Amino acid sequence: MPKEETDENVIFIGNKPPMSYVLAVVTEFKRDNTSEVVIKARGRAISRAVDTAEIVRNRFVTDANVKEIIIGTESVTNDEGRTHNVSSIEIRLSTK
Amino acid sequence: MPKEETDENVIFIGNKPPMSYVLAVVTEFKRDNTSEVVIKARGRAISRAVDTAEIVRNRFVTDANVKEIIIGTESVTNDEGRTHNVSSIEIRLSTK
Repeated sequence: MPKEETDENVIFIGNKPPMSYVLAVVTEFKRDNTSEVVIKARGRAISRAVDTAEIVRNRFVTDANVKEIIIGTESVTNDEGRTHNVSSIEIRLSTK
Repeated sequence: MPKEETDENVIFIGNKPPMSYVLAVVTEFKRDNTSEVVIKARGRAISRAVDTAEIVRNRFVTDANVKEIIIGTESVTNDEGRTHNVSSIEIRLSTK
């Protein structure tokens, strides 16, 4: 079966320490010899996404390069039904 | 005289509210009909740099596109002489 878009190797960055996500990305690269991993984050986690990408490629997967970085704006609705905008980032790391 | 690299229109993002930097970027675009502005940030200000770029291009300079995003790692030495690494981002907005 052809690999679908939804099978992409995506790591979502949250509020844990950066090294948790570094480990997740490195593990993803090792699994099935994946050549591309996408790191996604929103809001204040964006800084941590950049930290994660930098630590991965400087220390752990040194043949990985930043293939593409996309920034955007997403609408988020909170529990009270109010909508606000939040920035997002997608960092695509590739060993190809 | 040819325009030198150091004349680049750069806005450094710090700890003020995002709208301060949005205003700075918009002002820079208006000045001398500048077609390119670079937004730079380090560490936790990276999220704010993305917010700034997104607000500028969604609300104020709607013909501006993200031309390039570069992430990197810089060494910073603190007052006690200790060195640590910090992530950085450069977002290049262009109306061309």
